[in-house]
Amino acid sequence: MNFCSNCGQTVAFKKPPGDDRSRYCCESCGVVHYQNPRLVVGCIPEASDRILLCRRAINPCYGKWTLPAGFLENGETVAAGAKRETDEEAHARVDIIAPYALYNICYVNQIYLMFRARLKDHNFHAGRESLEVKLFRENDIPWEEIAFRVINATLLQYFADRRTGRFSFYTGNILKPNPDSPKAGIEN
Amino acid sequence: MNFCSNCGQTVAFKKPPGDDRSRYCCESCGVVHYQNPRLVVGCIPEASDRILLCRRAINPCYGKWTLPAGFLENGETVAAGAKRETDEEAHARVDIIAPYALYNICYVNQIYLMFRARLKDHNFHAGRESLEVKLFRENDIPWEEIAFRVINATLLQYFADRRTGRFSFYTGNILKPNPDSPKAGIEN
Repeated sequence: MNFCSNCGQTVAFKKPPGDDRSRYCCESCGVVHYQNPRLVVGCIPEASDRILLCRRAINPCYGKWTLPAGFLENGETVAAGAKRETDEEAHARVDIIAPYALYNICYVNQIYLMFRARLKDHNFHAGRESLEVKLFRENDIPWEEIAFRVINATLLQYFADRRTGRFSFYTGNILKPNPDSPKAGIEN
Repeated sequence: MNFCSNCGQTVAFKKPPGDDRSRYCCESCGVVHYQNPRLVVGCIPEASDRILLCRRAINPCYGKWTLPAGFLENGETVAAGAKRETDEEAHARVDIIAPYALYNICYVNQIYLMFRARLKDHNFHAGRESLEVKLFRENDIPWEEIAFRVINATLLQYFADRRTGRFSFYTGNILKPNPDSPKAGIEN
């Protein structure tokens, strides 16, 4: 942020009076520009013993597999956002079952909220951001080709729960990648 | 938003190419300024059969009672944000027990995430945004003096669950107030 979105003058990064952290403050009109984490919403679309994954047609992680998910829009409920993303990325319609997992990804200011969902029919096909869309049984999940660690963590938890038949609501943290230990960095 | 925060030139509210909704787009440097809902995090601080409420020293709802809650900050986990807000508003330290309820307040682009929490000690006192901070038994809750409908909904659910001893994770929607029916507008 270089300029005030209200008046167009320059901003300074400093502590507003009475605040305990620095913000972008307009030195002309006085507006303080707060910046907050963004919520990513998505789902695990189930069809009996299979789940739907999308192969990404965009970067980051072009060509890798992921669950449908994306930024929550203004005016949208979290469940509606998860359904919209599933429709956009997989042209698939789902019924939301329940919230399933929340992951903090603090180092990129994102909070992921994933739902369990039921695929309403098998008339799905790749949306503009997907190369292909496919149903996978647990044994066929391309674990080495999953796009993001948060998706990997969600899927591991999901299949562990499916074996017991008991689903709860989980929270976890995805830590900044450590180049010395690329597999580490997930806290439950 | 009137000006581009990147280059300081004017913005137009229009659909970017390939998008399906209007955004603030800079006509000079081309940056699209996405705007997304903000997450409010807070908790229900428990001390045996009582819970802690704060009487607001600021508007909106000056003088009304609320649970400690506020906007999640960049770089913060949702649980850390709920603890920080409790410390700021009530100078109270809590252990987070579990996520408890998520409410969509779409008409103001806010998502509330409330936790259950355990008060660690009784050394609390009003923070700068509170007039007073007090422990209440269910029978003493000032129901007619609760600041926000989302707090009212959280407390009603909480006391209903406490009677059964079974706590789950809830989602609900706080709808735009209807002047003809001010008490309505909460969907579970």
